[in-house]
Amino acid sequence: MRISVIFAGKYSKREAKMSNTDTFRVCVIGLGSMGMGAALSCLRAGLATSGVDLSRDRLDAFAKAGGEAVAVSASELTTEFDAAIVLVVNAAQARDAILGDTGIASRMRPGGTIMVSCTQSAADAQSLGLDITARGLLMLDAPVSGGAAKAASGDMTVMASGPRAAFDALAPVLDAVAAKVYEIGPDIGQGATVKVIHQLLAGVHIAVGAEAMALAARAGIPLETMYEVVTNAAGNSWMFENRMRHVVDGDYTPNSAVDIFVKDLGLVTETGRSHAFPLPLASAAFAMFQQASNMGYGKEDDSAVIKTFAGIDLPTAGDKS
Amino acid sequence: MRISVIFAGKYSKREAKMSNTDTFRVCVIGLGSMGMGAALSCLRAGLATSGVDLSRDRLDAFAKAGGEAVAVSASELTTEFDAAIVLVVNAAQARDAILGDTGIASRMRPGGTIMVSCTQSAADAQSLGLDITARGLLMLDAPVSGGAAKAASGDMTVMASGPRAAFDALAPVLDAVAAKVYEIGPDIGQGATVKVIHQLLAGVHIAVGAEAMALAARAGIPLETMYEVVTNAAGNSWMFENRMRHVVDGDYTPNSAVDIFVKDLGLVTETGRSHAFPLPLASAAFAMFQQASNMGYGKEDDSAVIKTFAGIDLPTAGDKS
Repeated sequence: MRISVIFAGKYSKREAKMSNTDTFRVCVIGLGSMGMGAALSCLRAGLATSGVDLSRDRLDAFAKAGGEAVAVSASELTTEFDAAIVLVVNAAQARDAILGDTGIASRMRPGGTIMVSCTQSAADAQSLGLDITARGLLMLDAPVSGGAAKAASGDMTVMASGPRAAFDALAPVLDAVAAKVYEIGPDIGQGATVKVIHQLLAGVHIAVGAEAMALAARAGIPLETMYEVVTNAAGNSWMFENRMRHVVDGDYTPNSAVDIFVKDLGLVTETGRSHAFPLPLASAAFAMFQQASNMGYGKEDDSAVIKTFAGIDLPTAGDKS
Repeated sequence: MRISVIFAGKYSKREAKMSNTDTFRVCVIGLGSMGMGAALSCLRAGLATSGVDLSRDRLDAFAKAGGEAVAVSASELTTEFDAAIVLVVNAAQARDAILGDTGIASRMRPGGTIMVSCTQSAADAQSLGLDITARGLLMLDAPVSGGAAKAASGDMTVMASGPRAAFDALAPVLDAVAAKVYEIGPDIGQGATVKVIHQLLAGVHIAVGAEAMALAARAGIPLETMYEVVTNAAGNSWMFENRMRHVVDGDYTPNSAVDIFVKDLGLVTETGRSHAFPLPLASAAFAMFQQASNMGYGKEDDSAVIKTFAGIDLPTAGDKS
């Protein structure tokens, strides 16, 4: 694979700044829906922002939007960074993107701070924290929530833990990307745990939304009616309202895929085991998502977990002419 | 037990109306938190409203508020009613309050309409509907949602099914008590089914809220912090926000009791069986509420389902000085 660095040359004012070593520079690793939103939010806040992603299309898009530099690998970037935001899918990717041969750690200024925002176990976060600290860098254990829309508008929710110095160093970045920053505590792993528990709720809410809508279909209740009643009553959840709309519309275009919750509810059950703690509902929901993935729906929208229920007819996208 | 009828004598204008046999009269059976709210909402709407309850205190309170007549038994009322609202706890109570020896059926005008608003199975609703129709009366299968506050303000959500004539006859009552009336369909039982499915979601949301907060307690995450994060993120539900506040505050004063969800999730599992349909999450949540009741928490707030988790310290009301 040819590795290259693209400079967004039209931003002469920013290029001028680049010669000033005092400029605060941030690099966003992972320009998926969340990462791109965070990166663009940094740009809007006036931060000199670079981007790393494996997708040439995403790199081009971010360069056009004003990214200082973009590359498929952090080691190819020629500047050094005060801060990095890591918005990749899982712990293994995060470790590689930070500490791997071509990771961002080698491009950080001494004492630079890395905001690790993937969903991972507390144990993985702690292990990563130790290795980052050993490189003379700071880590903020900072998972995020809010979805693509809130990432795009700079309104993510950040649930963060770590040393005060990491919060302080990342202040310009947190200001740019988040509407709310929760300081969970001083220890790496606390942020990860809060996110995992949040995902327990999110995952079970999707699965039980599917269970309820599947029973409605079985009982001959129109799903549009069921959706309307629930979303106006005490049985509603954020996930029910957002995801069961897809079921009513018969549209399983992935917003967030089934396999994401196979991963996240897997982390939940792992967290339960690590604390020797029973999680009856999360375990049942995990089994439902795992079954959906094994049935071939892993890349569909996570609401496709409803397809694990046999003996019902569900709406299809063609139902509305 | 001495049975008596109290007339709220101070309402001379209304008493004058009582001599006019064309006055639309409604009787509310069951003056609990929901029923009292509905009855007071009828009064506010200018309907001549009577009330039936076993509690003398509740009857007195409703009479003082302007109730036309109150009694511990419908058969003791001397007027006849165009409409009745039955807001008792379960199907057996509803059947007795309507068709029992002292039930409201004998006090209805010919063709009068009974709005049955308890949570019950579709089969029970259908059986009741047949017997009510055989008495020359109409039934609306009309469970409600919204809680005491919305009942008090006349803003309940009603999920109703039944013949058009029943909807029409109850129009003044529905206008008075509900912000939203969903017409699920023409068949008795459809309203009951929608309510049962709604309770599936409500019950699982409470149980999974408890599971998540219990794991947070086990992992050393402050519950106030966990609550704050979830209620501002995509893992939120109406029930989490409402009920987990009680856990954070260590206050299990019953708003709605554990035993209500033993009953309602029991109806859910019964509905699953009647449709030969698996309900993995509802079944697990039912087991949690049943366990909580068997541990002695049946009369506590339904959030006390969290007490089924051993090996954690939960906040107590005295924690905040």
